[in-house]
This record gives sequence, C-alpha cells and structure tokens, in this order.
Amino acid sequence: MSNTPKVAVIMGSDSDFPVVKKCILMLKKFGIEADTRVISAHRTPEMAASYAKEAEQNGVDLIIAAAGKAAHLGGVLAAFTTLPVIGIPMKSSTMDGLDSLLSMVQMPKGIPVATVAIDGADNAGILAAQILSLKYDFLKPLLAQFKAEMQAEVEAKDKALQAEVAAL
Amino acid sequence: MSNTPKVAVIMGSDSDFPVVKKCILMLKKFGIEADTRVISAHRTPEMAASYAKEAEQNGVDLIIAAAGKAAHLGGVLAAFTTLPVIGIPMKSSTMDGLDSLLSMVQMPKGIPVATVAIDGADNAGILAAQILSLKYDFLKPLLAQFKAEMQAEVEAKDKALQAEVAAL
Amino acid sequence: MSNTPKVAVIMGSDSDFPVVKKCILMLKKFGIEADTRVISAHRTPEMAASYAKEAEQNGVDLIIAAAGKAAHLGGVLAAFTTLPVIGIPMKSSTMDGLDSLLSMVQMPKGIPVATVAIDGADNAGILAAQILSLKYDFLKPLLAQFKAEMQAEVEAKDKALQAEVAAL
Amino acid sequence: MSNTPKVAVIMGSDSDFPVVKKCILMLKKFGIEADTRVISAHRTPEMAASYAKEAEQNGVDLIIAAAGKAAHLGGVLAAFTTLPVIGIPMKSSTMDGLDSLLSMVQMPKGIPVATVAIDGADNAGILAAQILSLKYDFLKPLLAQFKAEMQAEVEAKDKALQAEVAAL
Amino acid sequence: MSNTPKVAVIMGSDSDFPVVKKCILMLKKFGIEADTRVISAHRTPEMAASYAKEAEQNGVDLIIAAAGKAAHLGGVLAAFTTLPVIGIPMKSSTMDGLDSLLSMVQMPKGIPVATVAIDGADNAGILAAQILSLKYDFLKPLLAQFKAEMQAEVEAKDKALQAEVAAL
Amino acid sequence: MSNTPKVAVIMGSDSDFPVVKKCILMLKKFGIEADTRVISAHRTPEMAASYAKEAEQNGVDLIIAAAGKAAHLGGVLAAFTTLPVIGIPMKSSTMDGLDSLLSMVQMPKGIPVATVAIDGADNAGILAAQILSLKYDFLKPLLAQFKAEMQAEVEAKDKALQAEVAAL
Amino acid sequence: MSNTPKVAVIMGSDSDFPVVKKCILMLKKFGIEADTRVISAHRTPEMAASYAKEAEQNGVDLIIAAAGKAAHLGGVLAAFTTLPVIGIPMKSSTMDGLDSLLSMVQMPKGIPVATVAIDGADNAGILAAQILSLKYDFLKPLLAQFKAEMQAEVEAKDKALQAEVAAL
Amino acid sequence: MSNTPKVAVIMGSDSDFPVVKKCILMLKKFGIEADTRVISAHRTPEMAASYAKEAEQNGVDLIIAAAGKAAHLGGVLAAFTTLPVIGIPMKSSTMDGLDSLLSMVQMPKGIPVATVAIDGADNAGILAAQILSLKYDFLKPLLAQFKAEMQAEVEAKDKALQAEVAAL
Repeated sequence: MSNTPKVAVIMGSDSDFPVVKKCILMLKKFGIEADTRVISAHRTPEMAASYAKEAEQNGVDLIIAAAGKAAHLGGVLAAFTTLPVIGIPMKSSTMDGLDSLLSMVQMPKGIPVATVAIDGADNAGILAAQILSLKYDFLKPLLAQFKAEMQAEVEAKDKALQAEVAAL
Repeated sequence: MSNTPKVAVIMGSDSDFPVVKKCILMLKKFGIEADTRVISAHRTPEMAASYAKEAEQNGVDLIIAAAGKAAHLGGVLAAFTTLPVIGIPMKSSTMDGLDSLLSMVQMPKGIPVATVAIDGADNAGILAAQILSLKYDFLKPLLAQFKAEMQAEVEAKDKALQAEVAAL
Repeated sequence: MSNTPKVAVIMGSDSDFPVVKKCILMLKKFGIEADTRVISAHRTPEMAASYAKEAEQNGVDLIIAAAGKAAHLGGVLAAFTTLPVIGIPMKSSTMDGLDSLLSMVQMPKGIPVATVAIDGADNAGILAAQILSLKYDFLKPLLAQFKAEMQAEVEAKDKALQAEVAAL
Repeated sequence: MSNTPKVAVIMGSDSDFPVVKKCILMLKKFGIEADTRVISAHRTPEMAASYAKEAEQNGVDLIIAAAGKAAHLGGVLAAFTTLPVIGIPMKSSTMDGLDSLLSMVQMPKGIPVATVAIDGADNAGILAAQILSLKYDFLKPLLAQFKAEMQAEVEAKDKALQAEVAAL
Repeated sequence: MSNTPKVAVIMGSDSDFPVVKKCILMLKKFGIEADTRVISAHRTPEMAASYAKEAEQNGVDLIIAAAGKAAHLGGVLAAFTTLPVIGIPMKSSTMDGLDSLLSMVQMPKGIPVATVAIDGADNAGILAAQILSLKYDFLKPLLAQFKAEMQAEVEAKDKALQAEVAAL
Repeated sequence: MSNTPKVAVIMGSDSDFPVVKKCILMLKKFGIEADTRVISAHRTPEMAASYAKEAEQNGVDLIIAAAGKAAHLGGVLAAFTTLPVIGIPMKSSTMDGLDSLLSMVQMPKGIPVATVAIDGADNAGILAAQILSLKYDFLKPLLAQFKAEMQAEVEAKDKALQAEVAAL
Repeated sequence: MSNTPKVAVIMGSDSDFPVVKKCILMLKKFGIEADTRVISAHRTPEMAASYAKEAEQNGVDLIIAAAGKAAHLGGVLAAFTTLPVIGIPMKSSTMDGLDSLLSMVQMPKGIPVATVAIDGADNAGILAAQILSLKYDFLKPLLAQFKAEMQAEVEAKDKALQAEVAAL
Repeated sequence: MSNTPKVAVIMGSDSDFPVVKKCILMLKKFGIEADTRVISAHRTPEMAASYAKEAEQNGVDLIIAAAGKAAHLGGVLAAFTTLPVIGIPMKSSTMDGLDSLLSMVQMPKGIPVATVAIDGADNAGILAAQILSLKYDFLKPLLAQFKAEMQAEVEAKDKALQAEVAAL
C-alpha cells in the first residue's frame, strides 16, 4: 500500500480543463496525486475501458470523471471498476448543464456515480479527500483545517461586509 | 449481401420489453429480422462492446437501443461501430423520461444517436425501415403502403368521429 | 442508381446557416453531395411539401432538417416522403433549444424524425454518412477512418494536457 | 355573409376527443357551428393543407387545432390560411404536455397560433366566441351572460364553502 | 361602427417597449390603430380594471398584453372584458421566459388569453390582424399579401444561400 | 385593536379546499380566526379587488391565497392592499404545480407574494402564525410549543424506526 | 419593545451583496434597521444556528435569507427560530436560479420559508415592511405612500411612452 | 480501528423508509453495519448537528442522507463533519424529485454531497461499499462478486427474453 493517495481525473474533452483545473489544484492542496487525462467515453472507448479496468492495479484509489452534454463518461468508467467514481457534470453550450447532470446522476441500479454540482470541480476534489481520508489518516487533520479555513474566510467576509454596509 | 435486412434491438433491461415489443412487431411487419437482446451498458459492458464491434460482420445493418434514466446504451454501442444507431429513450419512474431523452439525444460531436420520442418504439421500427430501404429495395413499396394505411386509418376515424359528433 | 450519395439539407431560416454549415462541411468531407436550401414549413409550406414529395425521384437519399423554436420542419417534410429525415433542433433566443428539441423528437406514431443534439449539425452529417453507408460502400472505410482520426485527436489532446498539468 | 358563425375543430387523433368535446359543447352553448374533424398534420398532410386552404371559402371563420406531443397541427394549418388559428396543446403520456405546449406556442415570426392552456378545450371555445363576436353581434350579450354566470357560480360556491367551513 | 380597427397594446413595464415596438410596427403596417399604454396589473390595478372595462365602449376591438415574470396582465385585463386578449410572454432576467409563458397560457377555465411565443411581438400583431379581418374586410387582402411577401422573402434567401453554399 | 388575530384564506376554486383545509386547521390550532372564501381573480375580479381593499378595515391582519395553473390570485389581492399576502401554489392536473409556483413567486418589483411550497397549506398556516406573533404575543409560546411537539414527534418516529430496522 | 423595527439580512456569500443591497436600501427607505451579515449554512453552521437562536432576544423581528444553488440558508435559520423567515433565491451561474428557488420554497411541513422571486431583493424588503407593519404602526402610512409612488411612477412612464409612440 | 464498517443512514422522515430500506438491505448484503435514524434537518436541527459532529468518534465511517422536497439534510450533516456524505434525493408528491435532486446536488463550494439518482437507495448502498473498500479490504472481493452477479443476472434475462421473442 502506497503512502500517497492517487486519484484519476478524467475529462471527456480538453475544453473541460479550465473548470477541472480547480479540482486538480484542490487535490494538490491535500497532497493527493492526480493522474489527469483526456479520455472520451465515445471517441476513445477502448481506452476508457482499459483505463478503468487497470486503475486499481495501477494504484488509483478513486476516479473523478468530468463530462458534458450526454455525459456518459462516469457511468462508462464505473462499469469497468469497483473503485468509487465521482462525476462532475459540465455546463455546456445548451441546456445549462441539466443534460450533463441527469446523464450522470440518474444511473440505474448497480453502478452508482457520486455526482457533485454542475461545474462543481472544487467539490469533487474535496469529496475525494473525504473519501480517501478513510484510508489515508494524514488527510483527516487537513480536512479539519480546510473546514476551519473556510469558516475563517466567511467570518472575515462577514466583518468586511458589515463595514461596507455601515458606510452605505 | 444478404437479402433480409437485420436489425439489432438492444434493451438495457428486460423491464423495457413491453414498450420495445412495439418496435419488434413493427420490424416484423416490414419483414426485417430482429436480433433482440438484453445488454446493459453498465452491468454487461464487455458484452455491449463486443456486440457492437462484431455487429457489422454478423450481418447487422443497424442497431436500435432502448434505455431509461441515465440512458448510455445508445452512445456506448455507437462508440464501437459505424453502423447507424437509433435510440429509444424510455420513460422511467421519475423525471417522465426527460433524463433518458437528454442522455440519448445530447451526444457530443462525433458519435450521433438517432433519437426518437420518449417510449417511441413504433417509430424506431419505422425509422429503421426507412433507413434500410436505401439498401433493400423491397422496403420502399412497403413504406409507401404503410403511409397509405395510416392515412386511411385517420380518414376512417375522421368519418367515425363526425358521426359521433353529429349525435351529440 | 447514382454513385454519389445526395442529401437534402433544409433549414427553416438562413439565420440557421452558421450552425448548419458544420453539417455541410461534414458531408463534403465524406464526399456526399448536399442540396442546401432555405425552406420554411410555415412561410413556404407548398415548397416544403413539393420538395419532400419529389426528393426521392430527384435522387435525394436522405433529408436533414434544421429548425428552431416550434421546429415543425422535420415533421412536415417527413409527412410527405418515406426517405429517412434527420432533425437538428436549433438553439434559439429563448428556452435554450428545449422547445426545438421537443418539437422535433416527440413525433407521434407513424412519422419519425431521427433527432440529434441541439445545434448538433456535425453529428447530423456523420449520422447521414452512417445511414448512407448501407447503400454506398465507399463510405464504410471513410467512417472507420473518421473514427480513427477522432481517436487520434483525443489521444493527442490527452498527451498535451498531461504536459500542461505536469507544469502546474 | 352567413348569419351563423362556423368554426373548424380539428384534432390530430381521435384519442383527443374526450378533451376536445368540452370545446365543442362550449361552441354549441354559444350557437356556433362546429365542423369537427380528425386530420393529422403528419399522417394526412394533404388533407390538412387542402382543408386549411379551402376553409375560408367553405365559410369557416376560425380554426381550432388540438394536438399532442410534437404538436405541429396548429402551425401546419396556419401555414395555409390567414384565418386565426387557436391551438389546444394536449397532455400526452409523457412530458405532461410541455412538449405539446412548446410545439404550439413557440411559432416563429409570421405564422402565429393563439395558444390556450394544456388541455384547455373549454377556453378554446370561449376564445373562439370572443373572436367571433367581432363579426357576429349576437355573441356579445351571450359572452356577457356567460361571464355573469361564471361569477354567480363562484359566488354560490363561496357561500357553500363558508357553510362547510363553519361546520368544521 | 368605425372603419379603422383599434387595438389596445398594454405593457406591464416600459422596459418591455423595445420588444413590443415590433408589435406596434406590425399593426401600423396593417393600418390598425394602436392605443399603446404602460399599465401594471399590480402597480396600477385600478387603471387596469377600468381600462379593460371601458375598452369596448372606447372603440377597442382587441387587447394585446405584454408582461414578464409572474405575467398576470393578460389575465387581469381579460377578467374585466369579453374582448379577445392576446398575451405576449416577455423574456425576463431569469427563467428565460418560462415563468411568463406559464403565467399567461395556463389560464383557468372561463378566461382565456390567446398566447403567442416568448417575445413574439410580431406574431401578436399578425394574430390581431387575422382576428380583426373577421370584422374589417380590408385586412383580408393585406394578410394574403403579407403571406406572399414572407414567401418571397424566404425564396430570395433560399437563392442567396444556394449561391453562398456553392462558393464554399 | 382586536385581541384575536384574523386571517383571510382565499382560494380560487372550491376544488382547492381539500388541500387548503390543512391551512385552516393549522390556523385553528393557533387560535387564529379564518375568514375562508372562494374568490376567483378572473371570474370574480371585482370581489377580489373589493375584498382586498377592505380587508384591513375589516380587521384582517394577513391574507392567504391559494390558486393553481396561472395562479394570479395572490398578486391580484396584493395589488389592492398593503397587508402581507401568503401564496399557496396548488398542484393542478398538468405541469405538477410548476406553473402555479412560477405564477405566484415570480412577482415583479413592488408587489411581493410570500410563497410557500406547492400544496404547502400547513406551512402557510404556520407562516401566518409566525408573522402574526409580531403583533399577538400569545402566539409566541404556542409557536415554541409547536416546534417542540414536532421535535418530539420526529424523535418518537426515530425510536420506532430503529426498532423496526433492528427486526429486519 | 423597541420602537425601531429590526431585520436580520443574512446572505450565504458576499458575492450575493450586489443584489441583496437592493433589499437593504428598501429597508432603509422604510426606516427599518438591518443587521446585515454573511453567514453560510454550510461553512459557518454554528454561527447560523446561534444567530437564529438568539435573534429574537437580540431584538430581531424577522430574518431575510439570501442564498444560491442548493440554498439551504433560509431553512437552516428557520429551524432554530419561530421568527418569520423570508427567502431570496439567488440566480447563480447555472440553472438560472431554479435550483435556488426549489431549495428554498419547497420546505417540508413545519418549517416555512416565505419565498420571493429569484433575485427579488426589493420585494423581500417590501414584504418585510408589510409584515412589520402589523407591529409597527408607523409603517402603514409609509407602505400606502410607497404604493402611491409606484402608481405615480407607472403613470408617468405611461405618459412618456405614449409620447414616444406618437412620434414613431 | 474496528473491523466492521459502519454507516449512518439518516432519513428526514419515516415516510422515506420504504425506499431507504433498499439501501439498508444492500449494506447488510455487504456486511456493513447501519445506524438507521430518522433525523430532520429542520424539525430536529440540534440532533442533526450533534449526530454529525459526533459521528466520527462514534465509529461511523460514512453518512447516507435521504430527504425529499427542499432536501437540506445532506448539506446540513456535511456542514458538521468531514466524513463523506452520500445523498439520496427522494421523489415527493410534486416536482417528481427534481426539487430534491437540485437541493442536494447543487451544493456550493466547500461542502460536497455525493448525490445518487432520485430514489436511488440501492446505489447509495453500493457506493458506500465502494468507498469503504478503500479502508476495509474484505469489501473488494464482495464488490467484484456483486458485479459478476449483476452481469450473470442480465445474461440470464437476455436468454429468457430471446426465448420469449422467438415465440412472438
């Protein structure tokens, strides 16, 4: 068992990268290794199947899949592995991401995809860290610290806003 | 080249059969052979891939895929073949089929799925006959006759209704 | 029987052209002749009817119809022919294309329209090539080659992205 | 000019009759003649075109079209006439009538369809009477009386309910 | 009876004017007088009620109401008159006009609003002309001419596009 | 100033009563007088206007309006009073209440309607009690007690369920 | 009992401030004190709970909560107080505010949130003033005056528009 | 560290139990201990907070939250813990579960909820097993076996259906 958690971050198209980047930076912040790849469920289906089938033996703990429109990537990867798969439905040029969301979250019985918000790449990274903390103890204090930092950030904004409002 | 057109009718779950049956009967009416199968994109992904890859050499002219919820079946089959794939989005227990429709029709660039109406199994069969008529000439007069029959049926109902209304 | 496949590409308004152009270029890539027309189901209904009725005898193998809002064009053309009709629902200024999609895909029993994604003009072209390959054998290797090119393109982007991520 | 107003009530399928009947009875109540027909925009398109083209010379003042799913009937009839066309979007087995509504109401520039509520057959009849009252003066007092009756009916229900609530 | 048809064009907010203007210009084109007003169902409810109640005796033949969001204006005016009321649902800053459309079209039994497309101001004007032609004969040839002009316009665009495509 | 709080509970149709009854019983539980009425914004608009205008001087503290489809009732009443108006969007036979919800909640600037959940008649009663507690002190302990009862009820169900699960 | 009404205006993120500011200015216009805060239901849940629990004893009469996406803030605050809670669903980067609206308005039995329109910050302020007028009599004439000003504003715009239209 | 994985299964109302039971049975099948509870985010908020805060020290590895309508439960629990939280959006009496889905999945940055399909209780159990397999090695072969059983089940249904179709 490796001491560094490893996550596969698969996106269906490199046009998803500006959003997915937030996920990768979040994983980095938690010291999680990311194998970031462009693999299309439809244009490179063999690659998708073989990547998912070999993921576990390649040391991958968990897969994050980002895709838009008829977003099959999460389901297709999940079909070939028993690793947990997190899905990020991408907002696309039409339908405001509703198509991506429903294509990911409405998985039939047997093959779940753990879906986060439309374009919710940060949260996919955080969810990965939470899941991996079951295995990697060093993540627990980091998650607690992250929660504390978020709280402090909101409290600071709260103070700043009160000052701004007082000056209205 | 065989003289009998052959269509693969794949459904993601046998619970789809009562609706899909209308497609099979329509194909039968046009003298089209149907290879009807239950293959799940998620629970039997290897079978889905191999079926699609071998379809053409097995004499299949066209694939019809029926699936509900996150309906990936059409896209997954289309990824492994260049045969035309028709998709029937199945109405499921929630979302009234909108999830199935968007999961099927919103395919990204490169891998189209020819989508018909939610639960539109009859029309999938008719569309298959129209497509196959490009290759199998005997289908052309049958399609013309089918159109004429539909017209006659509407005209008969029109007459019956006029009588019913007159008696109001 | 002609040796060149011929597709009618009908749009309801010339404002649809920037999107529909992608379909025409895709057909060109496959060596398919396109008869590109602006015909409105509502403003030139006689033209729509006569075009559809005469399409087959004019050598048209298949019709592609692009329209937005209450997108009746596909259904209106399909009513007058037994050729397969592919529908491209156009995104319009309101409703994000949902109106166009439902107006096209939800065709009642008897008259199917093979619907692709909202603004999915490329895919309409590819689907046309797949359908025509049943009749025109020269399209089969072109479709296989196109699939291989798409795969190579994704693989190249995959490599490029891995380099970009490594440099984060 | 005839002294009896005449409305064409066209439905796309005789399965729409139980709902459309409410429209016919409403027209009857106002002394408006109804030519009730089953004509499908898709299965009997020639009939739809010729009916609409000849409607005015046949003494029809206004057309009411009821259809479900991809509800093209209103638009198809309106394409061939300058008579006002009222559309009743029918609730169908999926999508709760949203598909019918958008297919009817979202008509592009040039060819309006005056759309009422999903399954709003009564209101189509009332709207027809309001429109026809511009030409047929006898309808004006009937419409005023109908409004008064509706008011009286609500007031009676108001009284009955107050008694029921008092007894709670 | 006046020889000039007169339509009330009521908008709920002057911010609707850029869209509603298309309706006014269309009415002008048909020689229909428009009484254009800003009246809010909610902010000037007395004015809305008195305008609707007095409309007929003030020579108004028909009312067009444009409003957005919870678009009650059409229904509120219709409650106080038996003149036909046409509703234009305005696209607003959220919900893409779906809220306006449903608030207008889903009128309960007894009080119809003849609803056109979201932002469909042109069509409201054309529908008004069609309805008024029942009473004002001079509108009939103008409507036929308008239909012919639209047809000619599409045919011209068809020719232009064919030239553009030939040069691709 | 009276010592008994008084709420007007107005429904657009007596068919709404089975749901609205839950609101009336909730008000009763809090010792709030309810003037329950059937008043239609569209069929009895004068009554709606006069009721709202006179409500305050008749001792009404707050208005609850329940209506379905194009649910204008809340907005129409709010237009004629400065009393707070709570809206209950009723689920109707189509659109699952989405039309009612949007017609109520999306009120334009100036005339708010405090909207609760679709068919949320209980909550309309509770919200009324919360609002009235600003004026009527006796409601404060009743609201605290109601909250405690709800908590106790959930805790009892929690215990019962744990027993049921243990026996699985 | 204080003579100045006091409202808590809580937003889930300081990015909501540009919209929420309209609420604060509206409260100011009515002479209502606003305690404006950034408190996140998810990132500062303890603060949310303690703020809501202590609000009443700190002299807060009513709470306004603005939040987007999965907008839990209103419900979370309402869980800890019996003060009335008004919810402003914020439009976010996807789903056009539908997610925020449903997350706020669809509260289960027992804990209502009085929801206004998406981004309806003005109306939240006006609704607060209406509710507070039950306790603070000085607000009644201010609300009447505000209604009169809105009416005058619409009438002025009506006049201006009539002039503009006359010059078309 | 215990040798038995432990999951908290929290539902917002005991009316959710018939669906949630499928999750509990799935966990049982994998030998995972379930602490099944009825805790309401709104009616027992203190209990929700304390349960979540103490979950980890009570040996809970992961939380599953099932709730309907404005389904805040998942987010409220996640706010007080860094354990992974899986959300099951429950179909309720209106909106077909869309409200529950959006209220759960659209969580803002910082606090993810891993959402499965509407009423997808089985999949919540399977996802839990996949996540827990990172820590509990005995789950890995069970998951592989479960996948094999599902595959076998589909293959058996495939055979049965082929027989049924042959007899058509």
